[in-house]
Amino acid sequence: MRIDEDCIGTKEIPDDALYGVHAARAAENFQISSEKLHPLLIQSLIQIKRAAAQTNLAAGALPENKAKAIINACNELLFGSYNAEFIVPAIQGGAGTSANMNVNEVIANLATRNSGVKIHPNDDVNLAQSTNDTFPTAGKMAMLRSIPSLMASLNRLTKTLLDLAGEYQDTIKVGRTQLQDAVPTTFGKTFHGYYSMFRRDIKRIEMASNSLKEVNLGGTAIGTGINATPYYQDNVVRTLEGTAKLGLKQAEDLIDCTQNCDAYVIFSGALKALAVDMSKFSNDLRLLSSGPQAGLAELILPAKQAGSSIMPGKINPVIPEVVNQVSFEVIGDDVTVTMAAEAGQMELNAFEPIIFKNILKDEEFLTNALTTLNDNCVSDIMVNEAACAKEVEYSAVTATILTPYLGYVKTTEIVKQATRENKSVKELVKDSGLLNASLVDELFKADSLVNERIAVKAMAK
Amino acid sequence: MRIDEDCIGTKEIPDDALYGVHAARAAENFQISSEKLHPLLIQSLIQIKRAAAQTNLAAGALPENKAKAIINACNELLFGSYNAEFIVPAIQGGAGTSANMNVNEVIANLATRNSGVKIHPNDDVNLAQSTNDTFPTAGKMAMLRSIPSLMASLNRLTKTLLDLAGEYQDTIKVGRTQLQDAVPTTFGKTFHGYYSMFRRDIKRIEMASNSLKEVNLGGTAIGTGINATPYYQDNVVRTLEGTAKLGLKQAEDLIDCTQNCDAYVIFSGALKALAVDMSKFSNDLRLLSSGPQAGLAELILPAKQAGSSIMPGKINPVIPEVVNQVSFEVIGDDVTVTMAAEAGQMELNAFEPIIFKNILKDEEFLTNALTTLNDNCVSDIMVNEAACAKEVEYSAVTATILTPYLGYVKTTEIVKQATRENKSVKELVKDSGLLNASLVDELFKADSLVNERIAVKAMAK
Amino acid sequence: MRIDEDCIGTKEIPDDALYGVHAARAAENFQISSEKLHPLLIQSLIQIKRAAAQTNLAAGALPENKAKAIINACNELLFGSYNAEFIVPAIQGGAGTSANMNVNEVIANLATRNSGVKIHPNDDVNLAQSTNDTFPTAGKMAMLRSIPSLMASLNRLTKTLLDLAGEYQDTIKVGRTQLQDAVPTTFGKTFHGYYSMFRRDIKRIEMASNSLKEVNLGGTAIGTGINATPYYQDNVVRTLEGTAKLGLKQAEDLIDCTQNCDAYVIFSGALKALAVDMSKFSNDLRLLSSGPQAGLAELILPAKQAGSSIMPGKINPVIPEVVNQVSFEVIGDDVTVTMAAEAGQMELNAFEPIIFKNILKDEEFLTNALTTLNDNCVSDIMVNEAACAKEVEYSAVTATILTPYLGYVKTTEIVKQATRENKSVKELVKDSGLLNASLVDELFKADSLVNERIAVKAMAK
Amino acid sequence: MRIDEDCIGTKEIPDDALYGVHAARAAENFQISSEKLHPLLIQSLIQIKRAAAQTNLAAGALPENKAKAIINACNELLFGSYNAEFIVPAIQGGAGTSANMNVNEVIANLATRNSGVKIHPNDDVNLAQSTNDTFPTAGKMAMLRSIPSLMASLNRLTKTLLDLAGEYQDTIKVGRTQLQDAVPTTFGKTFHGYYSMFRRDIKRIEMASNSLKEVNLGGTAIGTGINATPYYQDNVVRTLEGTAKLGLKQAEDLIDCTQNCDAYVIFSGALKALAVDMSKFSNDLRLLSSGPQAGLAELILPAKQAGSSIMPGKINPVIPEVVNQVSFEVIGDDVTVTMAAEAGQMELNAFEPIIFKNILKDEEFLTNALTTLNDNCVSDIMVNEAACAKEVEYSAVTATILTPYLGYVKTTEIVKQATRENKSVKELVKDSGLLNASLVDELFKADSLVNERIAVKAMAK
Repeated sequence: MRIDEDCIGTKEIPDDALYGVHAARAAENFQISSEKLHPLLIQSLIQIKRAAAQTNLAAGALPENKAKAIINACNELLFGSYNAEFIVPAIQGGAGTSANMNVNEVIANLATRNSGVKIHPNDDVNLAQSTNDTFPTAGKMAMLRSIPSLMASLNRLTKTLLDLAGEYQDTIKVGRTQLQDAVPTTFGKTFHGYYSMFRRDIKRIEMASNSLKEVNLGGTAIGTGINATPYYQDNVVRTLEGTAKLGLKQAEDLIDCTQNCDAYVIFSGALKALAVDMSKFSNDLRLLSSGPQAGLAELILPAKQAGSSIMPGKINPVIPEVVNQVSFEVIGDDVTVTMAAEAGQMELNAFEPIIFKNILKDEEFLTNALTTLNDNCVSDIMVNEAACAKEVEYSAVTATILTPYLGYVKTTEIVKQATRENKSVKELVKDSGLLNASLVDELFKADSLVNERIAVKAMAK
Repeated sequence: MRIDEDCIGTKEIPDDALYGVHAARAAENFQISSEKLHPLLIQSLIQIKRAAAQTNLAAGALPENKAKAIINACNELLFGSYNAEFIVPAIQGGAGTSANMNVNEVIANLATRNSGVKIHPNDDVNLAQSTNDTFPTAGKMAMLRSIPSLMASLNRLTKTLLDLAGEYQDTIKVGRTQLQDAVPTTFGKTFHGYYSMFRRDIKRIEMASNSLKEVNLGGTAIGTGINATPYYQDNVVRTLEGTAKLGLKQAEDLIDCTQNCDAYVIFSGALKALAVDMSKFSNDLRLLSSGPQAGLAELILPAKQAGSSIMPGKINPVIPEVVNQVSFEVIGDDVTVTMAAEAGQMELNAFEPIIFKNILKDEEFLTNALTTLNDNCVSDIMVNEAACAKEVEYSAVTATILTPYLGYVKTTEIVKQATRENKSVKELVKDSGLLNASLVDELFKADSLVNERIAVKAMAK
Repeated sequence: MRIDEDCIGTKEIPDDALYGVHAARAAENFQISSEKLHPLLIQSLIQIKRAAAQTNLAAGALPENKAKAIINACNELLFGSYNAEFIVPAIQGGAGTSANMNVNEVIANLATRNSGVKIHPNDDVNLAQSTNDTFPTAGKMAMLRSIPSLMASLNRLTKTLLDLAGEYQDTIKVGRTQLQDAVPTTFGKTFHGYYSMFRRDIKRIEMASNSLKEVNLGGTAIGTGINATPYYQDNVVRTLEGTAKLGLKQAEDLIDCTQNCDAYVIFSGALKALAVDMSKFSNDLRLLSSGPQAGLAELILPAKQAGSSIMPGKINPVIPEVVNQVSFEVIGDDVTVTMAAEAGQMELNAFEPIIFKNILKDEEFLTNALTTLNDNCVSDIMVNEAACAKEVEYSAVTATILTPYLGYVKTTEIVKQATRENKSVKELVKDSGLLNASLVDELFKADSLVNERIAVKAMAK
Repeated sequence: MRIDEDCIGTKEIPDDALYGVHAARAAENFQISSEKLHPLLIQSLIQIKRAAAQTNLAAGALPENKAKAIINACNELLFGSYNAEFIVPAIQGGAGTSANMNVNEVIANLATRNSGVKIHPNDDVNLAQSTNDTFPTAGKMAMLRSIPSLMASLNRLTKTLLDLAGEYQDTIKVGRTQLQDAVPTTFGKTFHGYYSMFRRDIKRIEMASNSLKEVNLGGTAIGTGINATPYYQDNVVRTLEGTAKLGLKQAEDLIDCTQNCDAYVIFSGALKALAVDMSKFSNDLRLLSSGPQAGLAELILPAKQAGSSIMPGKINPVIPEVVNQVSFEVIGDDVTVTMAAEAGQMELNAFEPIIFKNILKDEEFLTNALTTLNDNCVSDIMVNEAACAKEVEYSAVTATILTPYLGYVKTTEIVKQATRENKSVKELVKDSGLLNASLVDELFKADSLVNERIAVKAMAK
């Protein structure tokens, strides 16, 4: 064991450890969960350290031998396998200082070991930086890096839905408002409705992600940029973006950007809206596939596993059910993120670690939930077309089509009679002689009932 | 009393009442709260009815005498004083049908009374419409109509903050991260930070409001547009927008737009982010004005009322406190809105009434809270400049400025010594002879400490 | 107009107003909502003032003429009609000081006017008190006073459910787990399950209400009891309870009781659990009554109003829908209460006004929602017994009863065959000869399928 | 690889795997998170399986050789190391069927392997059981098993607080209401207030845990107990409790207990109230230790790690900060639990997996947070007694003690003068001659100011 020292005192550290006294203390202080820092957060911090060394070198603030030692160490860490050195828990006090220092220490020790030049974690690796600008910048980078996977899984689901919309565009079914039978629609329109809903999520998450692209790197401790050279302040974000390719830009007001966390609230809010949409869709899938005998039984979801340990042959909608649960998780997490953002005080918000942990988790869970939803459920959905058609035939609310001819009051009577006598409205009206039989036939054609002209203009495209 | 009839049966209604049997039943069924429908919601429904009559007339679906009677009644209701006729509670079951029917009935009865032409609430006033397209369209219109007041109060607050930023741009003060003393800043930067934060809210609420501009009017019951003529479907939103001037446009996928409520989740989320920012700002105001003797006492908030019934002379930060509470209310309401949106099923979400009630309330509360925050607090804030300057002088963390010269380890020792011996760092360093005295003087100037070059680029503009 | 004065300065007040300068300032400062203080809160504050005067008189701290003047004024206010004098908004900064002072002022002015003795709102009416002990005590009293109505409506609903359980104890129906057909049950058991659930809420709310009975009256400003005599401190709660009859007792640790708001979090949590149960019950009612043709159609809810402005004859489950919305409101309010409770700092929580407003509202909304749920829906529910019996006959999952005889694997085959061939399991098994026909008949009797022996032990009582 | 078969088809399973086809499918279907089932949940399920085998044996429903094989396998699994066989994710669809079947399969295969008797996972291990009674029973057992650790950490913290209350019972300090200086208190009272608060949490969590002790084991699929013998139904919970020692008892209404999740909402609510208290306490610790120069600086928290990567010598309140974050997490999780509980439908709630995951996590996080809070912070807190005394001396609000003598109005003037002239109230009053000097001395003694007689009656015990 070697002895490391900090302002608290000395501490034994395993001889070959690249991490140092700060990380070791943090690992002891924050034994809340076994979850470590998210890998994308570490990766982003290392990229920031590399960009800082490059910029400090160009600014003349860091000697070339030190800069190169740091840059080489960063490169090795980015491609290498030193995961075990990042020992700091995801949930940590200190506003991310332990995360930043763990990375500073690992880089400094690796750079020193490899180059023979003594590299100090604070004076060299952290030069012109603070936790308070590097950690939030890394957090935003990690969130941005998680978006493409989320978009990919959303895009795959929307493609499946669009295919289903085409496949079932003529499959008439009963609509339902407030769970009561309503005027008919088609499964094509239904699937297209979900498609349109999720397309909106794609646009919204992209839009909300823009707020993550404004970073406070260069602001150091509180946004004033103390201890950073003017050259560094003006160039470090550009240097970082050169390899990050995430659309990062330095915020105009670094004081604001260092202390306020509303960008996370908005991004979490967009994820929450996606969760709401996923949950509503899953609820519908479960309702429409209820049965098989005593339910709606309009949809047949692919059987993925035996549904019951006691009831043989039972198949349950397990995939939508897991999606519902992920949605509830994300909605709850949004409250956590909101409270953490609200709790910031003066020049800093000390609660970014829990914000980052939750949002990064949400992005991952949503991505995975969408993937299993598409691959294990939606892409193999089948529609019970015969049952749907039969339901429409016996649905009294189809009488709505008669109101322009008979008025609301008279039509109400017909609906009541049809329901009471368990008869088809169409036959009832024909029998009544209230309308010409051919007009009745025309009105009760599927095309009339679902009003094929409108509803989903986009489908025509 | 007159006798009205509906599909449930007959019901006595006061002779002179313009509302009818539907509204009367709803008023009995939903006795949850004394709160009635929001006036902007009623107003918007009436405008929709007028636009529908105009469009139905142009489509040849409604005779001129009936159309004119309806249009005239709408005009009278919009300018007149029939508020007592809208008896339906804000919190209602039925997905807004009671709201829509209350309006249909009042218009029909007023039109009949005035014109002598018998106007039917469903067949004439509600022609080519459904609750399911008129009610959400009206809800969005009401929310959009509440935005300008909110923007105005936000703009006034940001203007005040920008003025304060200019007024105190040279007032140095101790920064604080994690509530511990940090490197200095100025009150100019501090106020500008809040300014930047609230400017972001302005942009975000405007952006989120775009999602409210897509309406499903023309989709009737479930988005298929059943019982509306093609002309009506294509023209009713344009006709409505002609007088509404809210940027309304018909959604491309009316099925989707009729059943999904994520637009409200996103808009509520933007209001929630504003609430988070207002609460953080209020927390800071309360912290910075704590005292007068045993607190930070950097800010002096205007005294608005005696603070205590028992402690004479006590003044409390009552305005920020009420703003905090409004923020908590809005954050809780966002959970209500989220749950209601998630609970939609198939072709409709039956829970829009609670969504509309909460969002309209939130817009109003936020507007009012911002107004009292600006008028009764921020616009009369004073800074205790002498106290701020003195704090900086004795703040050991100003030693941070020395690290580029002495390194992190040596500087740590100096900070510890200054704190232990209760001495000024500047004097300690001078006495130590570690650095040239003129360099020390230079470093500890306010401009160096707060790094005047950067931080708020926008202020230079 | 008369001129009142306080530590801020002077202010014009209407000559005949009983309220004074504090209330007038507050009414201007907190223009957030038009909602005034809850009447039960005002009533409780007046009772506290009366008890304080009585106790101060007994302690020799208040002259008899002043005490009597205050007591008489309180009595008049409690029975009289001075509501318009309580002008302070429900949502207020200042931790309730405006509420307390409004009451102090009205009492002082009325007492002075009636008795001719000059009574001071602070020195006399508020003697030995602070907002910080009177306001939370009044808040708890108001919450406790709202419980009996809530309990009464819950009790009425549970009685109706128990009656339904008896009425339909032999009505067999398909059970459903995960929305898929499951083994049979009876509507008797179903209604009894809801009964048991709501009985638990009754017990829980009573238990949670105990935490509201501990009050900090006597602790004055921060719980130390400064400026109250020992006699007063020891006797004021007992005196108050003498007429309040709410089970109030003085908290053992007044410091704690003055600053911590967890009692409200727990009470709000119990209301939230009730809301969850009400929402689940309403969801079930809506599902089970879905149809009339294309739904489950097992329950027939009473028709309370026309369901649609466009679809004639449609009846919707409007009562459960309004109950769902009240539930979402209460669940969101719980987040507001939680955040407000968390935000307390040191010796006080300044955010009790929003806590009180929300909990008092929740109690009222829940009471009203339960009342309409019982009176307008549950008490007139009918069961479609024939449809239920038929569903059981064709439900393949009834085959579960065979597994003890045939094993899980063989039974699975039978279920699959029954579903595929759309046959009754019972007939299939009989035809197969796998089991003796009389055993099959025995197994498929309703009593066997629903296992009449167990399930609801309590029903046997 | 061996080939397993279920109602879906066949699947390759590693030859030596104890888990079977159900678990393997679930592991593929639910790839949301890498988190597996909580060990306490698995352990509890195994104990249930053992108790079921014992009871079925006694009931004559399971042959002795099979029962013994199952019991032996359970014993081996409880003491052994087969963790890798439990491959099912914590977040799963299917209402826990995958968890139950994973355990059934592992037991069946181990029992078969060890005994040579062919044991079937459904027909033998799961005999007389369903996921719907075993899984919730196991969930409740796991939650109950996590309580003693939580109580132990809470008890340790309350002991430390009580010690601090004793140690600092005479240390006078300024009280603060609404962050403004208020009448004095002592740190003894302050620490005792926190002690009382956390004692209440202990009682409350114990009370809320009672609702977890009612289990539905014996109810099988939906609470009717189908396929369980009367003997089993009556005895299985008693048998389980014989070794579990958790206070388990069978619910009276098994239908209710199988479908409703309000017990979890209430238990989560009690955890949330604890989180609120922990967060309020942490906020106070951070406020009271703010500084060191420009803050309140009344408390000195133990330095646990260097506070900043850029500001040398800075020490931050990292332990309270991590506790705040755990609190936000638990509060957000409560929303997730609430939504999942609300989403139950008819005879079952399919969303128990996310409820169990979150509550078990919350119990663990809270336990760990309390441990680090006690061990790394509270137990080494020091009070800056000199600073506290000095603050009291200069706090103008101490003038409150004068109001019984001078009245509210006159005392207000004195406070204003003292603040304006920056003088001690005590000296000002003495100089004024308004009161006898010896009376003033008496009043301004610490004992008078903090009213030593009352406040914390419990401390006298």
